[in-house]
Amino acid sequence: MNQYSEIYRKELLDNIMPFWTKHSMDKQNGGYFTCLDRFGNVFDTDKFMWLQGRGVWTYATLYDKLEAKKEWLEIAIHGAEFMKKHGRDAEGNWYFSLNREGKPLVQPYNIFSDCFATMGFGALYTATQKEEYGAIAKATFENILKRRTNTKGQYSKIYPGTRDLRNFSLPMILSNLSIEIEHLLDKNLVEELINDVINEVMNVFYQEEHGIIFENVNQDGSFSDSFEGRLLNPGHTIEAMWFMMDLGVRLSKPELINKALEIALNALDYGWDKEHGGIFYFLDFKGYPPQQLEWDQKLWWVHVEALVCMAKAWTLTGNEKAKVWFEKLHDYTWTHFKDKEYGEWFGYLNRQGEVLLNLKGGKWKGCFHVPRALFQVYKTLESKKSLELV
Amino acid sequence: MNQYSEIYRKELLDNIMPFWTKHSMDKQNGGYFTCLDRFGNVFDTDKFMWLQGRGVWTYATLYDKLEAKKEWLEIAIHGAEFMKKHGRDAEGNWYFSLNREGKPLVQPYNIFSDCFATMGFGALYTATQKEEYGAIAKATFENILKRRTNTKGQYSKIYPGTRDLRNFSLPMILSNLSIEIEHLLDKNLVEELINDVINEVMNVFYQEEHGIIFENVNQDGSFSDSFEGRLLNPGHTIEAMWFMMDLGVRLSKPELINKALEIALNALDYGWDKEHGGIFYFLDFKGYPPQQLEWDQKLWWVHVEALVCMAKAWTLTGNEKAKVWFEKLHDYTWTHFKDKEYGEWFGYLNRQGEVLLNLKGGKWKGCFHVPRALFQVYKTLESKKSLELV
Repeated sequence: MNQYSEIYRKELLDNIMPFWTKHSMDKQNGGYFTCLDRFGNVFDTDKFMWLQGRGVWTYATLYDKLEAKKEWLEIAIHGAEFMKKHGRDAEGNWYFSLNREGKPLVQPYNIFSDCFATMGFGALYTATQKEEYGAIAKATFENILKRRTNTKGQYSKIYPGTRDLRNFSLPMILSNLSIEIEHLLDKNLVEELINDVINEVMNVFYQEEHGIIFENVNQDGSFSDSFEGRLLNPGHTIEAMWFMMDLGVRLSKPELINKALEIALNALDYGWDKEHGGIFYFLDFKGYPPQQLEWDQKLWWVHVEALVCMAKAWTLTGNEKAKVWFEKLHDYTWTHFKDKEYGEWFGYLNRQGEVLLNLKGGKWKGCFHVPRALFQVYKTLESKKSLELV
Repeated sequence: MNQYSEIYRKELLDNIMPFWTKHSMDKQNGGYFTCLDRFGNVFDTDKFMWLQGRGVWTYATLYDKLEAKKEWLEIAIHGAEFMKKHGRDAEGNWYFSLNREGKPLVQPYNIFSDCFATMGFGALYTATQKEEYGAIAKATFENILKRRTNTKGQYSKIYPGTRDLRNFSLPMILSNLSIEIEHLLDKNLVEELINDVINEVMNVFYQEEHGIIFENVNQDGSFSDSFEGRLLNPGHTIEAMWFMMDLGVRLSKPELINKALEIALNALDYGWDKEHGGIFYFLDFKGYPPQQLEWDQKLWWVHVEALVCMAKAWTLTGNEKAKVWFEKLHDYTWTHFKDKEYGEWFGYLNRQGEVLLNLKGGKWKGCFHVPRALFQVYKTLESKKSLELV
């Protein structure tokens, strides 16, 4: 496994980061372009707050944890200043998207804009020690906790009382965010939050009798036999399991790490396409047709997050299955997602593994999953010092 | 072309309608099941108002215009009574979906629920002459006109003022609905409405310099170089063009029919997948990657509506290209969408033409596009009396 460490570091430094540094800076209006075609040309100038925040996080984190390149810090600040100036409404909620100039396009209906803003400003605070950035991260995080039980507010289309489901995404993201911004929060709040999200992920959304994590469950945690309740997202599960492994290290709980590995291995088993290879995007628990027409597609983030999960699992537990899966995932991912001719990786493949969208970045793909995963795999395999990983 | 008439009538009467009659009735709670697997088994019991209203329309219309089968009328009433009892909020807006028992699941954010309720109750009024059904259709239609400029109300996520686009879907549906419920409306209102929607479809969304109908345009009708503005939906265009042909017949305007044919032929040309056959679901006007991951899939409604359009065009104009396209579409559609072993047709194919979802009905596919198209093609080819078609 040692050979992979250098491959991942090199890809990050020589291919991925130079691509974004070269193509995604909007020097005229600030912020980042993320809609980049195969060659890096900007094909759309809208600015999606998920990806602005994630871009800030990536540049600030790599500056802080990999190499103190002045350019990386400048780019992180460049994105954060644009966000700071244009990104929030009067109540401090983050818009979903802005136009090139920074005027709001889509309202703050999506709390993950706030999550990734917190992540970005939190990392930038670490890199710069500038109070203002820390304060933005902290205020946004407090707002997330306030909106936590009704994240969509007026934009929610759910009629209350008939089928009130709990959704996996926020606890999942919070289980990563709680560690990411630990340095900004009160110690007791962090402890409480960590216990809370671990409980939600491992005892509410994970259902022992099925060995599966559901995307949506009833308020009492029971299975909902509906489209939403039957929905499985193996990529989500596997990504969440490396967040759990990080928490297992943080709390020195090997049993949490082992359980997370077991759940991730099961998700890989049921999520893997035995005919064409790769991990399905969505499945229905009962094998019924899912509502998502893109269910059988192969998405970059699913595969790179699975690589991180298996790298961590192997390093932390030495489990041979994790190694076998890492190598299988490595082969599929590098063969199908990496563009052999031009920079960065493809994001969307059809079931057969052919390129579905000829882009390197878009509304949902920015400077985040690929660089974070390459960095995580590199660091994980290099260090092999399990308790010092996080 | 004459041979097709009988094939379409037979498929409608011997395969499609018996499938829905046998499998979609919820005798316990009323209304229709639409989530039916390949064999007709119910795999989900949620009730989507689009499909409830469309089901009522199909049964009532076939009863009125094809054959006065008592069973068809009973099924139409069965659906309408469920809708009447459970379908609306206190202001008369139609919910998007209900659970099996009729409790609201999703709020009335989607005005097309109201459009298809109007269509269903309007047709049922024609079939029964029962005032109550006519009154529901009329009240709903008045409510649609009231909500017309802000259809989503509080559920709209668009930040007003930055990029206020006009969307093609409502004028498109109104151009069909205005004829469907003409018998319920004031004559002047109908005239005004028809002129208005023809103008919107043919002069605002259709842009002569490109020969293309856009899904979204700026308020002043100009092209918006954004994901939404670049979006093309050839199926939408082609379906709207047979609505225009109907209006051309209704108004005795052959120039409208000819123009609609020209636009439809162009949409078929750019929308046809030259590699695998079939019509793409979405395309980007500039050839950029669309946001819709399902862009390259082949959907049943696109293909059956194109058959209707070409059947009408050929019958009304005698244009040889319409005949050639009809036969090409017929071959693709009957080869790929019709299930040779079990009842009804598949709805969703991948780009290669393989079955993507093993269902006959779901959240969006019910007893509507296939039976309506079979009926329209049959009637159109049979009558060949162009001015008596509508």
